[in-house]
Amino acid sequence: MSRIQPISGFPEWLPQERFIERHILDTLRTTFELHGFAEVETRAVEPVEHLLAKGETSKEVYLLRRLQEDPEAPERETLGLHFDLTVPFSRYVVENAGRLHFPFKRYQIQKVWRGERPQDGRFREFCQADIDVVGEEELPFHYEAEMPIVMAEAFEELRSIGMPPVRMLVNNRKISQGFYQAIGLADVEGTIRTIDKLAKIGQDETKKLLISDNGATTEQADAALALAAIRSSDDSFVTQVQALGVADPVLEEGLNELADLLRIAQERVPGIIEVDLAIARGLDYYTGSVYETLLVGHEDLGSICSGGRYDSLATDGKKTYPGVGISVGVTRLVSRLLRSGVVNANRSTPAAVLVAVWDENNRDQSNAIAYALRARGIATDVAPTAARLGRQIRFADRLGIPYVWFPPRDGGTGEVKDIRSGDQESADPTTWMPPAEDLHPQIRPSAPEH
Amino acid sequence: MSRIQPISGFPEWLPQERFIERHILDTLRTTFELHGFAEVETRAVEPVEHLLAKGETSKEVYLLRRLQEDPEAPERETLGLHFDLTVPFSRYVVENAGRLHFPFKRYQIQKVWRGERPQDGRFREFCQADIDVVGEEELPFHYEAEMPIVMAEAFEELRSIGMPPVRMLVNNRKISQGFYQAIGLADVEGTIRTIDKLAKIGQDETKKLLISDNGATTEQADAALALAAIRSSDDSFVTQVQALGVADPVLEEGLNELADLLRIAQERVPGIIEVDLAIARGLDYYTGSVYETLLVGHEDLGSICSGGRYDSLATDGKKTYPGVGISVGVTRLVSRLLRSGVVNANRSTPAAVLVAVWDENNRDQSNAIAYALRARGIATDVAPTAARLGRQIRFADRLGIPYVWFPPRDGGTGEVKDIRSGDQESADPTTWMPPAEDLHPQIRPSAPEH
Repeated sequence: MSRIQPISGFPEWLPQERFIERHILDTLRTTFELHGFAEVETRAVEPVEHLLAKGETSKEVYLLRRLQEDPEAPERETLGLHFDLTVPFSRYVVENAGRLHFPFKRYQIQKVWRGERPQDGRFREFCQADIDVVGEEELPFHYEAEMPIVMAEAFEELRSIGMPPVRMLVNNRKISQGFYQAIGLADVEGTIRTIDKLAKIGQDETKKLLISDNGATTEQADAALALAAIRSSDDSFVTQVQALGVADPVLEEGLNELADLLRIAQERVPGIIEVDLAIARGLDYYTGSVYETLLVGHEDLGSICSGGRYDSLATDGKKTYPGVGISVGVTRLVSRLLRSGVVNANRSTPAAVLVAVWDENNRDQSNAIAYALRARGIATDVAPTAARLGRQIRFADRLGIPYVWFPPRDGGTGEVKDIRSGDQESADPTTWMPPAEDLHPQIRPSAPEH
Repeated sequence: MSRIQPISGFPEWLPQERFIERHILDTLRTTFELHGFAEVETRAVEPVEHLLAKGETSKEVYLLRRLQEDPEAPERETLGLHFDLTVPFSRYVVENAGRLHFPFKRYQIQKVWRGERPQDGRFREFCQADIDVVGEEELPFHYEAEMPIVMAEAFEELRSIGMPPVRMLVNNRKISQGFYQAIGLADVEGTIRTIDKLAKIGQDETKKLLISDNGATTEQADAALALAAIRSSDDSFVTQVQALGVADPVLEEGLNELADLLRIAQERVPGIIEVDLAIARGLDYYTGSVYETLLVGHEDLGSICSGGRYDSLATDGKKTYPGVGISVGVTRLVSRLLRSGVVNANRSTPAAVLVAVWDENNRDQSNAIAYALRARGIATDVAPTAARLGRQIRFADRLGIPYVWFPPRDGGTGEVKDIRSGDQESADPTTWMPPAEDLHPQIRPSAPEH
């Protein structure tokens, strides 16, 4: 067998790290369900022509072939691994439209794969957590306000484990679209893609591209950049845009929607969601609100949670299914939290108790205690061997198990020891209960280093 | 875009079905954690030479290539999708040996892929739930008794949702090995593989194969079949084997271990685990206990939970990591439960309450009620539009949401209606709580059909 080593871009976690990831996933899941999102999982593969229908990501797709594939009898269609959860979900909606109830609120937490060059925060296999609401033919605007609020709530919940705060940046495609149209910039989609590069390449380069690639005059380029420079955490962005002196009904509609979104967001999750008219999102299919999320102090990571409104991602030729969705890059987030050491799990096993074994002939006695504890919801392990007691306690200590249970030796009662404090007391496995914070592994902010 | 349709062998569930699958996964997870198993996830891919090291499954592997792969600059190594969780876990153990504590108890719930021809109960993408205990250089026998008991507990727990009972069948490789050696059958592994086909091809065909393929004499073949015919739910299998008049120290050890396992199992999970000396498991790497599990009334499905003891699946060349593991075929089980209609979920959304909206200008009022309910752990949705009330109630009814909340119209209090009974009462969203059984979707046995 060849050498055993990690594969770049395919991260794996140790058990203690996995507890942190699970806590984050459980928090997302709980928040999604409180808002009435139902879970869906889709298969990992799609026919390659579905994956490539959006055009932009062709280079990233992993295709599948069977090792023993007969080249004379090829598969009916080439399959590829999905690179996001939006494309498979849109297919799922069309495929099951007759059995779903619209508007359909779903969440989906799965791995996705991209054959990209791995780098910091970019992986070839990673976990995404998406929520989308999809309507049949129509979808009310209020769902566009709900999406970032749901995510902001989950992120706020995660502050307690040491996750830094987030800044969610919102924009509305109608603003860019209406504004560009009104100033005579015909290449709306191209201009949006160029503006999407602004943070990366800066004002001057962006201006050059707007002129060279999108057919803008100097004045149009300056106007587009002036629009993109507007940001605010209150509705003052409206007057800032109006001050640019451009009037257009689509622009007007976008401003109203964005102001509405911000008002609702400020009420529910104050101080988290801000307007930033430079937020463009490269993808063509967005038609209304768009979202990006920065982790404060880790802005270099790029967006950890993005999405937007799309009017016609899914269609079966007869009906159109407009939607709005937002997606957390779970692996990107978890990887940074682990690497920066801000979050900690206080054990590497679910077990709260290790039952000691005096000798192998009495293992049944230790097992019986373990079963009594488990029956009451206390995760319990039994010592691997009847080693000397010091070694059994060290085994518990290394895993972070807080309690060691000593079975009765001679008809007496058993005792339980808190191996952190050394406190030891008589205890009955049918009634003893650890403090709530010891029942499960605790995910907490790391102690600050001094 | 090409036609949209299911891909054979890649099952997907509707939201209501996914609740059933999640309940099963959560039950497995909870049981595993109560026993002190920590969760691990491994990447979906392994270098192809690792996947093929066991030799037997080469035809089933899906290989990956990037769509835009430059044939002149190939990947350093060809990657394939894992076809089980044992191969990646053994690699994970060796890779992380210095950071794990042994014996290491881990569980793993992930999708796996096999390029097989799909048929009833056989999929190309399916979910497995595995537990394994791995030691460093050594692993005490008692873990071999623990494995099927943990699974039996989880299956017993699932009886309450309508899952049929299981029969777990156990054997010990040492019995076959010692017995075959003692009667002079040199091809032990080949004989085990042939006996593994017994249930499928019958006595006569098996006998022919033992003679033609494994070099057995007629007498040896008869003896091997006599051994394989022995089954019992108590320790009478020991005297049945002894009655065959074969003595061997390895056989003796196997009998003692299997009797020990059965004794412990009968105490913890009476009536579920039985000895069946025909259970062979085709794979070469098992060296002690082996397990298979039949769903009563669905024996045609094949084993839904299998595994065994392996002395040297993982090795880094210096150290050996013996282990014992058992794996649930979750998709196989879920698919059959869904198809046979024995289990039911009573809604297709997590929401327990739908808050009505009188008119769009008052949506904030409905949202505020929803937030008050969610803050107290009650999953709540808000009506998609301010449609007439009958339509809003029908929306709730279709999703199985039991309660519709009517916001106060004119400064009065709101009211909540149980749309199943029609009961309606004044209620305050900061104090009202539904009965526990309405808080989350209930997974229950389907009502018997008449």
